[in-house]
Amino acid sequence: MTGHEARLACRSGAISGSTANIANGYVQGNLAVLPGDLADEFLLFAQRNPKSCPIIGVSARGERSIPELGVDLDIATDVAGYRVWRHGEVVEERLEVGDLWRDDLVAFVIGCSFSFEAAMLEDGLPLRHVEMDVKVPMYRTSIPCAPAGRFAGPMVVSMRPLKPAQAIRAVQITSRFPSVHGAPVHLGLPEMIGIRDIGRPDYGDAVTIASDEIPVFWACGVTPQSVIAAVKPDFAITHAPGSMLITDRRNSEFAVL
Amino acid sequence: MTGHEARLACRSGAISGSTANIANGYVQGNLAVLPGDLADEFLLFAQRNPKSCPIIGVSARGERSIPELGVDLDIATDVAGYRVWRHGEVVEERLEVGDLWRDDLVAFVIGCSFSFEAAMLEDGLPLRHVEMDVKVPMYRTSIPCAPAGRFAGPMVVSMRPLKPAQAIRAVQITSRFPSVHGAPVHLGLPEMIGIRDIGRPDYGDAVTIASDEIPVFWACGVTPQSVIAAVKPDFAITHAPGSMLITDRRNSEFAVL
Repeated sequence: MTGHEARLACRSGAISGSTANIANGYVQGNLAVLPGDLADEFLLFAQRNPKSCPIIGVSARGERSIPELGVDLDIATDVAGYRVWRHGEVVEERLEVGDLWRDDLVAFVIGCSFSFEAAMLEDGLPLRHVEMDVKVPMYRTSIPCAPAGRFAGPMVVSMRPLKPAQAIRAVQITSRFPSVHGAPVHLGLPEMIGIRDIGRPDYGDAVTIASDEIPVFWACGVTPQSVIAAVKPDFAITHAPGSMLITDRRNSEFAVL
Repeated sequence: MTGHEARLACRSGAISGSTANIANGYVQGNLAVLPGDLADEFLLFAQRNPKSCPIIGVSARGERSIPELGVDLDIATDVAGYRVWRHGEVVEERLEVGDLWRDDLVAFVIGCSFSFEAAMLEDGLPLRHVEMDVKVPMYRTSIPCAPAGRFAGPMVVSMRPLKPAQAIRAVQITSRFPSVHGAPVHLGLPEMIGIRDIGRPDYGDAVTIASDEIPVFWACGVTPQSVIAAVKPDFAITHAPGSMLITDRRNSEFAVL
């Protein structure tokens, strides 16, 4: 299935829920739709925090297309699941948001770890949360994001346990993908970034770390979600967790080398 | 001073001893000169162990020039200090070995960590052994080299303590230099590679590791020296520790990206 075919299936409702393993090889992205008065500040926040918030596409104000991410792309219908937010709370989950669209909305699509994980798997590196069939563990850290306007807050990281030689290889592989979080931000020594108990993630599920493994941490797309929630915008739309936008771009296109 | 000027100064005796900080920017190399009956096996050993034994130049049998490393290069006079080995023991240290040269000798020049350390320093990464003005700590590991003919033995690694984010950056930087040991082979968890006491290196000097740092390990040019010594060749010549061959090649030329 191509990215375009997958979007049409999402649009018709034939695909909903998780988009993992759908249209393999095509870049998937997180969605954040904000009213115009917040959009400029959010764009600046993303520019200042490229590892946590790597933007891969932005709509023109009020537009539902993002041509650089796909032909015939309708951001209000083509995501596999949406969350509607009012005053910082999720008020609804639904499969399309066309009737909620407004002339002042701006849609941001943010790179996600699926792309670098695909590159890791292709190289034979293990992904523990995939092996255990659980969500990747994520932690709020003591690393502050660079603030912009009303947006501020700590970096959230995802964690994958690896043997040291695998961790070195993972740095090499994920460094090639700066627009989908890129290289790890930390490894070993969880307490140094404010993680008190590696066994109790703030989001997602705990995974086993063997005695010959170290935890390796990547900046995570939950960071922008969490700073947006903290601002409590009157209105916002995001993807539902795991239900991403599937684009026409290939993961390999995002490799800088 | 250029590489050529530095070699002329070594040849005349104006420079002897350590070549650290001489002709900055030019690649320096370890020297191993072996009789012809061992040279082919050693070349195969190096081919099988490129991280420990990255060869950057080989002379023709009996020749004292290595044109790819420098003009007017005489391997028997241009190294800042030599060790002469007989039956696996150092029998003499001297400043030139022209009168010992033989028609069957082959000279191998092996990339050294000075090149990747220069790239690390340029990026603002700290080198603890340089700060403490001691030799880099080196350890015999439990990682076996791939054997070739009579050559076999464990990998020797050098260690530099770094904060985790610096370690990630160091992986990126040193990955660009595969012909001078390249990326680290290990980080954290010293016991996993057979290092029982990080405070007691097998070669070089101990350095301080702060509580917010992890040890990062690179394959080391002492590996080939140690496997050569184990073979106890009738005759061999190496550089004296710290007294390297200075070439005409620039460190930046060795970056693959």
